Amino acid sequence: MDNSSYCTESLNSALSGTKSGSSDDDMVEITGATLDFSVTEDVQSLDRDGDGVEGVPRLLELLEEPVPGLGTYEDFNTIDWVREKTKDRDRHREIASKSKESTWALVKSVCDAFSGWLLMLLIGLMSGALAGGIDISAHWMTDLKEGVCLSGFWFNREHCCWGSNHTTFQDREQCPQWTSWAQLLTGSSEGAAAYIVNYLLYVSWALLFSFLAVTLVRAFAPYACGSGIPEIKTILSGFIIRGYLGKWTLVVKTVTLVLAVSSGLSLGKEGPLVHVACCCGNILCHLFTKYRKNEAKRREVLSAAAAVGVSVAFGAPIGGVLFSLEEVSYYFPLKTLWRSFFAALVAAFTLRSINPFGDSRLVLFYVEFHTPWHLLELIPFVLLGVFGGIWGALFIRANIAWCRRRKTTWLGRYPVLEVLVVTAVTGLVAFPNPYTRGSTSELISELFNDCGLLDSSQLCNYDNVNVTRVSNRLPDRPAGRGVYTAMWQLALALVFKMLITVVTFGMKVPSGLFIPSMAVGAIAGRLLGIGMEQLALYHHDWLVFQGWCSPGADCITPGLYAMVGAASCLGGVTRMTVSLVVIMFELTGGLEYIVPLMAAAMTSKWVADALGKEGIYEAHIRLNGYPFLEPKEEFSHKTLAMDVMRPRQGDPPLSVLTQDGMSVQEAEELVASTAYSGFPVVVSRESQRLVGFVLRRDLVISIDSARQRQEGVVSSSRIFFTEHPPPQPPGSPPPLKLRSILDLGPLTLTDHTAMDIVVDIFRKLGLRQCLITHNGRLLGIITKKDILKHLASMANRDPDSILFN
Amino acid sequence: MDNSSYCTESLNSALSGTKSGSSDDDMVEITGATLDFSVTEDVQSLDRDGDGVEGVPRLLELLEEPVPGLGTYEDFNTIDWVREKTKDRDRHREIASKSKESTWALVKSVCDAFSGWLLMLLIGLMSGALAGGIDISAHWMTDLKEGVCLSGFWFNREHCCWGSNHTTFQDREQCPQWTSWAQLLTGSSEGAAAYIVNYLLYVSWALLFSFLAVTLVRAFAPYACGSGIPEIKTILSGFIIRGYLGKWTLVVKTVTLVLAVSSGLSLGKEGPLVHVACCCGNILCHLFTKYRKNEAKRREVLSAAAAVGVSVAFGAPIGGVLFSLEEVSYYFPLKTLWRSFFAALVAAFTLRSINPFGDSRLVLFYVEFHTPWHLLELIPFVLLGVFGGIWGALFIRANIAWCRRRKTTWLGRYPVLEVLVVTAVTGLVAFPNPYTRGSTSELISELFNDCGLLDSSQLCNYDNVNVTRVSNRLPDRPAGRGVYTAMWQLALALVFKMLITVVTFGMKVPSGLFIPSMAVGAIAGRLLGIGMEQLALYHHDWLVFQGWCSPGADCITPGLYAMVGAASCLGGVTRMTVSLVVIMFELTGGLEYIVPLMAAAMTSKWVADALGKEGIYEAHIRLNGYPFLEPKEEFSHKTLAMDVMRPRQGDPPLSVLTQDGMSVQEAEELVASTAYSGFPVVVSRESQRLVGFVLRRDLVISIDSARQRQEGVVSSSRIFFTEHPPPQPPGSPPPLKLRSILDLGPLTLTDHTAMDIVVDIFRKLGLRQCLITHNGRLLGIITKKDILKHLASMANRDPDSILFN
Repeated sequence: MDNSSYCTESLNSALSGTKSGSSDDDMVEITGATLDFSVTEDVQSLDRDGDGVEGVPRLLELLEEPVPGLGTYEDFNTIDWVREKTKDRDRHREIASKSKESTWALVKSVCDAFSGWLLMLLIGLMSGALAGGIDISAHWMTDLKEGVCLSGFWFNREHCCWGSNHTTFQDREQCPQWTSWAQLLTGSSEGAAAYIVNYLLYVSWALLFSFLAVTLVRAFAPYACGSGIPEIKTILSGFIIRGYLGKWTLVVKTVTLVLAVSSGLSLGKEGPLVHVACCCGNILCHLFTKYRKNEAKRREVLSAAAAVGVSVAFGAPIGGVLFSLEEVSYYFPLKTLWRSFFAALVAAFTLRSINPFGDSRLVLFYVEFHTPWHLLELIPFVLLGVFGGIWGALFIRANIAWCRRRKTTWLGRYPVLEVLVVTAVTGLVAFPNPYTRGSTSELISELFNDCGLLDSSQLCNYDNVNVTRVSNRLPDRPAGRGVYTAMWQLALALVFKMLITVVTFGMKVPSGLFIPSMAVGAIAGRLLGIGMEQLALYHHDWLVFQGWCSPGADCITPGLYAMVGAASCLGGVTRMTVSLVVIMFELTGGLEYIVPLMAAAMTSKWVADALGKEGIYEAHIRLNGYPFLEPKEEFSHKTLAMDVMRPRQGDPPLSVLTQDGMSVQEAEELVASTAYSGFPVVVSRESQRLVGFVLRRDLVISIDSARQRQEGVVSSSRIFFTEHPPPQPPGSPPPLKLRSILDLGPLTLTDHTAMDIVVDIFRKLGLRQCLITHNGRLLGIITKKDILKHLASMANRDPDSILFN
Repeated sequence: MDNSSYCTESLNSALSGTKSGSSDDDMVEITGATLDFSVTEDVQSLDRDGDGVEGVPRLLELLEEPVPGLGTYEDFNTIDWVREKTKDRDRHREIASKSKESTWALVKSVCDAFSGWLLMLLIGLMSGALAGGIDISAHWMTDLKEGVCLSGFWFNREHCCWGSNHTTFQDREQCPQWTSWAQLLTGSSEGAAAYIVNYLLYVSWALLFSFLAVTLVRAFAPYACGSGIPEIKTILSGFIIRGYLGKWTLVVKTVTLVLAVSSGLSLGKEGPLVHVACCCGNILCHLFTKYRKNEAKRREVLSAAAAVGVSVAFGAPIGGVLFSLEEVSYYFPLKTLWRSFFAALVAAFTLRSINPFGDSRLVLFYVEFHTPWHLLELIPFVLLGVFGGIWGALFIRANIAWCRRRKTTWLGRYPVLEVLVVTAVTGLVAFPNPYTRGSTSELISELFNDCGLLDSSQLCNYDNVNVTRVSNRLPDRPAGRGVYTAMWQLALALVFKMLITVVTFGMKVPSGLFIPSMAVGAIAGRLLGIGMEQLALYHHDWLVFQGWCSPGADCITPGLYAMVGAASCLGGVTRMTVSLVVIMFELTGGLEYIVPLMAAAMTSKWVADALGKEGIYEAHIRLNGYPFLEPKEEFSHKTLAMDVMRPRQGDPPLSVLTQDGMSVQEAEELVASTAYSGFPVVVSRESQRLVGFVLRRDLVISIDSARQRQEGVVSSSRIFFTEHPPPQPPGSPPPLKLRSILDLGPLTLTDHTAMDIVVDIFRKLGLRQCLITHNGRLLGIITKKDILKHLASMANRDPDSILFN
């Protein structure tokens, strides 16, 4: 692996390495079937013919010393779910049968059953602790860009100013312990000079942080960049990317995430936290054989880890589980649902006991609204949904176009420069505007906030005419100067965020999309909310406001509009639905506001879907050519299996083995002359009736081993896949019996099966390949890659954009 | 259908009818494959050979007038999911292709796309309204047993006593408008005579209500009895029970549910509400062709309706969706998740606007606790989990034993008498105890409640020594006389509920289990909670209480114990996990108390699973012999497909058709001599190579139609399934070409495929049958029933307990 290359580029280069090593053919990667040979007992359990005894001792002998790498997969390949699940069931069966024999085995079996829960507990604790650490460090370093705490440089501004009441944008200067850099260096905090010093130091710190982040990523873990969710989706669907969830990635991603967030770039930590949690899950899997050795079981754990990531990102355990279920996971059995929930809760409570926000609240944005919403307000909410949908779809297009440009032009060759330039631009533009200077999540918090009577923030600068406060409810008031200032500052911030996020997402630093999208939506929502509020205030005699918005009533909550806007934009970008609403519900804690959120999320998804089918993660998966068979999309074409299978018309016939009569030399020549990962075995070349499927690797190992260990096996020895080889003529070399490496139950479909059914079967069973027959005769083979290429060509895309198997 | 029989008995009698009509053989019901003929276009779309043109005009002619019943299923049969989904995809494809032709078609296609959402809206509105009606009526009728409102007989006690502060058990007598029957009839509300009058009238009303309920169920809708959840689970897994979700069932179930709940029997309305919501869903499906005509699409709607049922039962929309996902549904695509959520929300808000509880609260039991729990309290919480698990497992055993007895002994023959006797016993025992006299949900509410300073209930009768109330928190106080009285009354109520529920659940009235189970757990939990509270109060110097339970602190909340106990018992009976915790979370609205609930629910599930594998719904499914392939259970045996397939060794060979050369007479004889619902078509009897699968019904219809319409077709005409029949010798009758009714893509597996994979494939694809081959030759067939029988025999159960296909 070329460490100096990045994320997707590194995958692509790795692929070209693979390709040159083997062949360009699509059927290269056909490996894996339902038979597994890594555990000797499995062979016995599957070779149950009763009379197939002759084959078994030979294989046992052959596999006495376990061959390293058997039963595992190569990098950048797809696993066979059926095979992995069979392996796990065999393991389980073995433990269950042993547990009846002795108490010790029983204890072991109980331990085995509870190891999943223990693993979940550990993932929850580790992810929660890491998330807490990231929160605290990012908080401190973000503040470091503006100043330092005199009572201890390790305090962030909030801890430093513990005594002050609020830490909104206005009263920042009221805390004596906290000094800006200008004050520290020049002794004065006022005036143009101080401003410039602060400005320069702000940008310098940002540049330093982002330089460190991009250098660390380049040097140690190229996989640590980006949000990681597209890759995790692909991995969960059965793809293998070694090192993507490894310990180096974890360490580097954790550190660089803090740096990237602190640098003030328009990115969030929520997506990368999912990656971090999945790394934790993957690393902790190594403690338990059950999960270490089984790719399918490990993916169950990773699904739960994804839930943990969102749970710690937002403090929303239920939303996290639903996010994993809806957005990330491919195979999500009910057992995983329950365990994910457990892990998500553990993580949330770990995070809360670390208490990074200093208010012992679980959630990232705590909101409490006091005013119910009116049915007519659904109109602006739906409008926000439309805005979110349009912005989401446009953002995806622009971002993908930019990423494509990065892949093909000089831009991709200077990633450090790119990051530095973007950081510099971000810092230079962000500093003058108070709403972009601080961290984005603080901004969102401020926007969600409902103005109380005591709020001193600019956004709450209302003219306090005839305030009659009744039970926490403030009547709508005319906006003061501060609000108008805030509005144009917010409008500028909106434009800036909308533009800069397009070039930021996909750079070579860890970067999440949740927070920037939410910020865009929250700004738009707040602006609309304030507009509505003032409209209702000055025109309460309009028909639409009559009855529910009389003077002195508190009828419009701009904070709710911000929240709805945030949900809309996030929904437009990611196309999340249920999980989005549930996460938002957990933030507010009241069912009351679910309906506006739902209306906006639904509108946003519909509008965005109308403008472009894919969410940002699917778009990035496609951009990178990962072999991801989208489980949500319906296959709507009328093609048949015969249109997709290989060999096509005019291609050379399928390479097959015959069940008897082939010599060792012929088999070796077949293996040498092709690069397929597996071969169907037929009764005879004439009949083409299918007997089973043999993996290339098993075949090679078996022949080599037999040549070495079994006396008399030479090139002219005959290979038999039958149960009872016919008696050999005297003088001929002893036969080689290989029935035990034959997968006798490969899945077959007929050539007339409709492709929608084939796609369904591939998705639901997690197949890698499927044999195609016609009238009982073997005709061809369909692999997952064939299906993806077919889907691409059906959608008028380039089939060769599917890079991996 | 014999209307005088009940629920499962009626199913069984219906089955025997089916059986006598056809045959006893297991392969009788093999119908359905991936080809569908109800829509003419489908035929064209599937017969895409290009050169198979000759076959198509004949079939088109044949199907010019649509044959009624084609493409539908018989009662008590299993649907083929693959076929239904293909049908829907074809329909969708047709609409999509037409939509490009004209604006009108485009509008229609948009309407089609939104019809699902409209349907959800309607289901939500209807179910919410019905649930509100049921709540209000049941409330009123429950109170009617004890007295009547003088200001208007249609008021229930709460509405009648609107002015009074509380309506706990003690201050019932403080409302002058509300008179007990004794007061109304004898003029006095005190003394033994009045008590006896009240007692007798209480029991009489109960008897009247239950008599009405059981008579209505018997007379009009035998399917209206029970909770309905086992049947709905089975229906959602693909079984057909006509009328189970029909309008009569809906009407009768709604009415009798009110009667049954009001009669004071130990049953709840939550399970039946799921049935009611599913009836609404099924009936409203008839408004939309898309859902009316497709069994798979309809099941998606029913899954959402089940979520709606729980949503209105508890006021917990998210919990409802997760309940449907976890407990009820079989096939739950993400689209359904989102729609279910929408429907559940609509229903919850409809119910809230009806406001049946009079406090504009969404949830059934609104609880607000003020005290955090301590880590050490997890020990009693886990103990409650153990109690819940043990009780759940024992309850299931006892209830199943009782139901089995009801099926086989005289008990089943006198259902009305049974209901009356149980009602009388319940009424006689319940009246003297204030905690069983009222409705069970009121009792649970009372038990969940945290005692405030003003609470006048007996349970809150604490000695108010040195009360220093700090912000809603009351310190632990010594229990007064009232609490001790309440404790033994609750203990008696506990024993009574535990016993009577066993005989009540399964009677011929609508009956849910949620509320009785929760009541048992809540009583046990409250008792333990009060015990812990007093222990901590009197022994605060014990090591375990030191540090967190000093004198004057409010350290133990008995209401929380009641809640945890309720969750434990409900979990033990139903084995719900995530949905249970989420429902409880929605009741309290705070993540704070999720951990105790989760610990208890987890313990309860583990303990109950150790004592008996099945939840109450699975146990009832098995009791009734429904063909339900449990999606959660792992298949853990080592059998192969060859061990399960038919024909077995010694059976006559498989009945097959050959693709050419069979005469019409031979085919007719084959159909007449067997009762199979479908026949594999092979190349020739000698080769046994599989060509496709033909449905019995299609074959019979095609032959009949050809005989009537096509000139010259006689018994000696040859049937061809090939594309190009060979030229016939001159003078022979014209051939019959039937390729178009052939399903060319039946799923095949080899005889060596492990059964765990076969079971997986059946579950995930929703198959009805699968053909088994060996070396490309057709060997046998496996149906869903074969698998269920195999599973039963593997678990040492009677395979013949599987009654249906």
